[in-house]
Amino acid sequence: MMTPHSVSAQEADVKAGAARAAVCFSCHGEDGVSKNASWPNLAGQNAKYLAKQMKDFREGRRQDPTMEAMARPLSDSDIANISAYYASLSDCEPESNQ
Amino acid sequence: MMTPHSVSAQEADVKAGAARAAVCFSCHGEDGVSKNASWPNLAGQNAKYLAKQMKDFREGRRQDPTMEAMARPLSDSDIANISAYYASLSDCEPESNQ
Repeated sequence: MMTPHSVSAQEADVKAGAARAAVCFSCHGEDGVSKNASWPNLAGQNAKYLAKQMKDFREGRRQDPTMEAMARPLSDSDIANISAYYASLSDCEPESNQ
Repeated sequence: MMTPHSVSAQEADVKAGAARAAVCFSCHGEDGVSKNASWPNLAGQNAKYLAKQMKDFREGRRQDPTMEAMARPLSDSDIANISAYYASLSDCEPESNQ
């Protein structure tokens, strides 16, 4: 039974997620391979994990000044869509920066 | 200038990391593709990011009961080696579970 505000993975909209994730691209990349080795790659990451992290940043359960500011304006469906977008990407690129 | 206890990525030992990471396999997989969509895939993740997360869990800056217990006994070189191990893996597998 789904609680009223939660958006299931099936309903998540990858296309809407790509649009909403534009603000994430400068750090995490449009391809989900981060620009800095201190930030996580997101390509192919589990959508459920990504959604939990964004909600934790939004609600202060996980602390990072930048991510808390980025997550604060996101709605539950924004979060579901952004998560679905990055989960849909494959990171079969050259080795990630270590 | 490296502080005495930090272990640079070059010194990290992927083989030692694979051995030390055995305790991580039941959740995160030997291949770095997690067994549960609520847990992050680690294959190909940035070693620097992974190391920071393990230190944050070890020192209570990031909260999760399981991960805090798993990280508590790890030394800095364990963390560097485990991070190098998972960063060295590629997750070019079938779609991750969403």
